[in-house]
Amino acid sequence: MKLNCDMGEAFGAWKMGLDDQIMPYVDQANIACGFHASDPLTMAKTVALAKQYNVSIGAHPGYPDLVGFGRRNMDIAPAELKAIIQYQVGALKGICESQNTRIEYVKPHGAMYNQMMSDFSKLETVMQAVSELDPSLALMVMAIPEVEEVKALAEKYQLTLYFEAFSDRLYSDEGRLTPRKQANAVHQSFELIEAQVLQLSQHGTLTTESGQPLAVHANTICVHGDGSHAVEAVKRIRSVVDGARS
Amino acid sequence: MKLNCDMGEAFGAWKMGLDDQIMPYVDQANIACGFHASDPLTMAKTVALAKQYNVSIGAHPGYPDLVGFGRRNMDIAPAELKAIIQYQVGALKGICESQNTRIEYVKPHGAMYNQMMSDFSKLETVMQAVSELDPSLALMVMAIPEVEEVKALAEKYQLTLYFEAFSDRLYSDEGRLTPRKQANAVHQSFELIEAQVLQLSQHGTLTTESGQPLAVHANTICVHGDGSHAVEAVKRIRSVVDGARS
Amino acid sequence: MKLNCDMGEAFGAWKMGLDDQIMPYVDQANIACGFHASDPLTMAKTVALAKQYNVSIGAHPGYPDLVGFGRRNMDIAPAELKAIIQYQVGALKGICESQNTRIEYVKPHGAMYNQMMSDFSKLETVMQAVSELDPSLALMVMAIPEVEEVKALAEKYQLTLYFEAFSDRLYSDEGRLTPRKQANAVHQSFELIEAQVLQLSQHGTLTTESGQPLAVHANTICVHGDGSHAVEAVKRIRSVVDGARS
Amino acid sequence: MKLNCDMGEAFGAWKMGLDDQIMPYVDQANIACGFHASDPLTMAKTVALAKQYNVSIGAHPGYPDLVGFGRRNMDIAPAELKAIIQYQVGALKGICESQNTRIEYVKPHGAMYNQMMSDFSKLETVMQAVSELDPSLALMVMAIPEVEEVKALAEKYQLTLYFEAFSDRLYSDEGRLTPRKQANAVHQSFELIEAQVLQLSQHGTLTTESGQPLAVHANTICVHGDGSHAVEAVKRIRSVVDGARS
Repeated sequence: MKLNCDMGEAFGAWKMGLDDQIMPYVDQANIACGFHASDPLTMAKTVALAKQYNVSIGAHPGYPDLVGFGRRNMDIAPAELKAIIQYQVGALKGICESQNTRIEYVKPHGAMYNQMMSDFSKLETVMQAVSELDPSLALMVMAIPEVEEVKALAEKYQLTLYFEAFSDRLYSDEGRLTPRKQANAVHQSFELIEAQVLQLSQHGTLTTESGQPLAVHANTICVHGDGSHAVEAVKRIRSVVDGARS
Repeated sequence: MKLNCDMGEAFGAWKMGLDDQIMPYVDQANIACGFHASDPLTMAKTVALAKQYNVSIGAHPGYPDLVGFGRRNMDIAPAELKAIIQYQVGALKGICESQNTRIEYVKPHGAMYNQMMSDFSKLETVMQAVSELDPSLALMVMAIPEVEEVKALAEKYQLTLYFEAFSDRLYSDEGRLTPRKQANAVHQSFELIEAQVLQLSQHGTLTTESGQPLAVHANTICVHGDGSHAVEAVKRIRSVVDGARS
Repeated sequence: MKLNCDMGEAFGAWKMGLDDQIMPYVDQANIACGFHASDPLTMAKTVALAKQYNVSIGAHPGYPDLVGFGRRNMDIAPAELKAIIQYQVGALKGICESQNTRIEYVKPHGAMYNQMMSDFSKLETVMQAVSELDPSLALMVMAIPEVEEVKALAEKYQLTLYFEAFSDRLYSDEGRLTPRKQANAVHQSFELIEAQVLQLSQHGTLTTESGQPLAVHANTICVHGDGSHAVEAVKRIRSVVDGARS
Repeated sequence: MKLNCDMGEAFGAWKMGLDDQIMPYVDQANIACGFHASDPLTMAKTVALAKQYNVSIGAHPGYPDLVGFGRRNMDIAPAELKAIIQYQVGALKGICESQNTRIEYVKPHGAMYNQMMSDFSKLETVMQAVSELDPSLALMVMAIPEVEEVKALAEKYQLTLYFEAFSDRLYSDEGRLTPRKQANAVHQSFELIEAQVLQLSQHGTLTTESGQPLAVHANTICVHGDGSHAVEAVKRIRSVVDGARS
């Protein structure tokens, strides 16, 4: 089980996230590509930081919506969705190659991620985009119950999939994240987070909102890099995962 | 002698340039990369068009200034200049690779081009950017009298240079373009353009504003893709160059 | 019956629309405000042009989506929708006041317009935005069959309404525009356009796609300022409207 | 003597400055207008906060350079400089009027401020922009030794001037800020800051880098709203100014 984290979400003079403190504890850095966050110089610094800690680099493309941080649904036609992904992944690739390193995977951000996980025609467009650019890139998707359908699509485009689960989110019985407006949607205590990570690591299951166990076949856990408790949380999650591994 | 032309300078719903009509007559397409013009979908279409006509693809990065079309001088620090070039060239590279084609060279746009040709510390930063990203990419620069100095810099970064001359611009005795505010700075008649192209192709010289011959060792001529006479002009220039070649 | 037209849709170096040729024939100019099109200098020039021809000035705010020309649906929360309208209308107001003229009305653009006409909670947010800023500004909306509901909302916010109809679009029996993907959605002949304008002007009705008459209580007709036939079309529509008036 | 502070410099999801904690201690809020920082919703919130604490509102327009925070010199032609100021001030005016409040003054930001203080042709363009929009708006400028020249220009455009001095910056003997790259350019201790503010308040003088007294006729002092010591610093400066006043 690996840990992935969104990184490089500063923009110009604006900071976001504690990348310097979080990077040593994660395995995979999802690096923003300039459409929802980041800028070329921030990307160059984030790639250098990932390289320093031997962290795998993922491209984290988003919708062209800086002011909305790529979190707002937008109607983007398939040909344009493909092009904005290939543009952003290519841009990060250019910066990686300039530092003699490489991208290992792609993980769409925010509304693009949510829309592809709920509308498989969008997921297929994302897969086409990645596969056309470089079929050796993996695609990180959410580990959802409809996993066989997602795998079948990925095979069509010869893509490797990484499946992620969330350490601090309450899941519905349908295997989806409960909406953030729901009071208990985000685990507030380290204990709940650690318990969820341990259960995922050891048993490949989660406990849903109704108290049922849910099989979640994830090979990476998404952790957060900002907020006052982020560093403490990621250290604890790292310990749980490393303990489960040994 | 080759012909190069700025291409793919539309932006979203806004058109610019007669790419469809010009592409068949040029050898090298300088494709905008989204900072001063273009967007991912326009880039994808322009790459496809260049591929269709077997035209070499060059990345045409600019300053982050859409509303000013990258023509306004901006104080961009060296580390950021490097990053915005690697970002933009990488983005076009991603789109090219997605269509199984490749970038052959880089030609900076507008104010970035002008500033690098008049400030060799900026030119060196551009060379670093390209060389770090991919030393097999050529760099297109203006064929200026200080060519040995430019060549020495390029050798330091192991870069191939393409030297360009302008078909329709009056040169000063110092081998620079006369400023556009000067009445005769841009040749208005096809005859003047054809004569300049012929002289460049056959003798490697130009006639400057004072009527002196000037040695200009160019291997590519920049033509323009917009304006009412663009198509006619490029056809005539093509004829002159092909005639001189045979 | 008045004629309104979208104006000032250039952006930086990119042109759009034949404003100089169209302005003399219309009564109301919907001037873009920089979010989906235009920039401050273009706005200043467009305001000057409208003033020159005594054309009423309307603010034409849009979604923050230049590359999509404000035509893509976006999930914008109500507080932000209010703010982006007040920002854009205020910006145009500042430019008008600098030229000793004023805005008379507001007409949302593209996806913002379509979404407010199909979701009255959005329409109410638009009305709040305008009313808070300046209740003497009118709001231009589409003349739809549910007109009483729209009027009731406008009364709540003490706003004057302008109702527009379209000269070149085929209407459904429900009084909505037929979708553009439908082959006959846009009238291609001047005769069809003239007939629709005449019927609107004289009888306050339209002929829908099934051939039924539909009451459309409009006091302004939207005409288009770009495309090869735009100038000819607006002259003809002007003649029909002026003839019907006399 | 008043205190002014740059406010509302967040952008979308990115925070900057401790506006909530600083606002109670200042008299004048320079509110960013969306070109170098801020967005419509942030502007609406910042105006509401200023109103809550009875703080005067100033428009703080900048160059169109979000990623560079408006700090990079740009070659903006006079007509465009005027338009971008009228656009931004108008936009903030629209938001103020929507909350039944008003703008009292204009203070250009960053590179626009620096360039107008060192090139009086730019200063004159700024004055034209403000005067055309609303001559009852004051213009905040740096209290420099060439004050009579600045006043003469302002009289030509019937503008009121506010003169500002800096609490924490070391001045050269020429009455300019020493460059930030100089080690002692920014006062690091509260004691130095308090001493400079006291001297300004009581005697209308500063001590320059060579230890000379320099007459600085300021009626407002610029304080900073971000950094770990910002709140403590502004409280201390407030105390000094209030003590000097009584």
